[in-house]
Amino acid sequence: MSATSGYHDTKDDLLKRLRRIEGQVRGLQRMVEEEAYCIDVLTQVSAATKALQSVAVALLEEHLRHCVTDAAAQGGDEAERLVTEASQAIERLVRS
Amino acid sequence: MSATSGYHDTKDDLLKRLRRIEGQVRGLQRMVEEEAYCIDVLTQVSAATKALQSVAVALLEEHLRHCVTDAAAQGGDEAERLVTEASQAIERLVRS
Amino acid sequence: MSATSGYHDTKDDLLKRLRRIEGQVRGLQRMVEEEAYCIDVLTQVSAATKALQSVAVALLEEHLRHCVTDAAAQGGDEAERLVTEASQAIERLVRS
Amino acid sequence: MSATSGYHDTKDDLLKRLRRIEGQVRGLQRMVEEEAYCIDVLTQVSAATKALQSVAVALLEEHLRHCVTDAAAQGGDEAERLVTEASQAIERLVRS
Repeated sequence: MSATSGYHDTKDDLLKRLRRIEGQVRGLQRMVEEEAYCIDVLTQVSAATKALQSVAVALLEEHLRHCVTDAAAQGGDEAERLVTEASQAIERLVRS
Repeated sequence: MSATSGYHDTKDDLLKRLRRIEGQVRGLQRMVEEEAYCIDVLTQVSAATKALQSVAVALLEEHLRHCVTDAAAQGGDEAERLVTEASQAIERLVRS
Repeated sequence: MSATSGYHDTKDDLLKRLRRIEGQVRGLQRMVEEEAYCIDVLTQVSAATKALQSVAVALLEEHLRHCVTDAAAQGGDEAERLVTEASQAIERLVRS
Repeated sequence: MSATSGYHDTKDDLLKRLRRIEGQVRGLQRMVEEEAYCIDVLTQVSAATKALQSVAVALLEEHLRHCVTDAAAQGGDEAERLVTEASQAIERLVRS
């Protein structure tokens, strides 16, 4: 494992997306405060959820591309361990 | 339809939850900035996604409890329209 | 509550969809038996999952349209109970 | 790529799960035919959906464990291509 993360190259893009999601969540607070129509609030909750899941898929892709394939290229048990760990993360993601 | 929203009674609870989710999203930004381990970031993304979906289910419940049943009690086509609209919101939610 | 279900009018359509999903699941068994490529099997699993979730949304819509709005039109505590029950079903659906 | 699939070792387990899911879908047809209560049908649809998603996660795990790590161990562009392809499959799964 190096000092940088698997998503080092896409870090700026991930941060930009997370800041946009923070803005969406603050927008949701304003809507609820002003008692916007339930269905309109729900539409925005769905949009924020989708945006979060896209971040998750992007993170997972970078993790597979760097951490998992690097471990596999080096051989040994580490790749095996990382695949089990990644699968559990995918399961949590699918269930959420 | 009254001047208040279907979630009027649970507004404070919804706002509290949304502020906590905003905190989770800011925590995610810090983790990415510090290049935390991919899987640890993913675990937090799953937690924030689950929290958002709980907000959605809570909103939907209040919408059914107040807007939809009120319209049904009054009779007429409005309840029909609200059920179609709510079903589309459920579909977006399940797909997100 | 009458002797017929909330989805009485769309029963034939639901059965047709469920038979098609049964066919998709049998197709998946054939693919696995012939050791089709993992990603091709996964694509078919996603299609079957989507089809099942559409059945769920259709069932829920009929349930809201008939059972819940009927109870609301009659007044009393039954509508309240049905909304709580439907919200729990939506939660299970969103989590699956 | 060998003549066997990435899930070769877990093929019997996958087939057993898919046959059980086929049974669940046939059970759903019986419930709808007998006009079982909407919410009871929905509970069974959620169970079948969850079972299908577990099959997907199991398939993906075997795919990562064999196809992706094998390609990474051999070096070259193939691992890169497989990671992109797997990420798209994960995205479809999360969206379904």
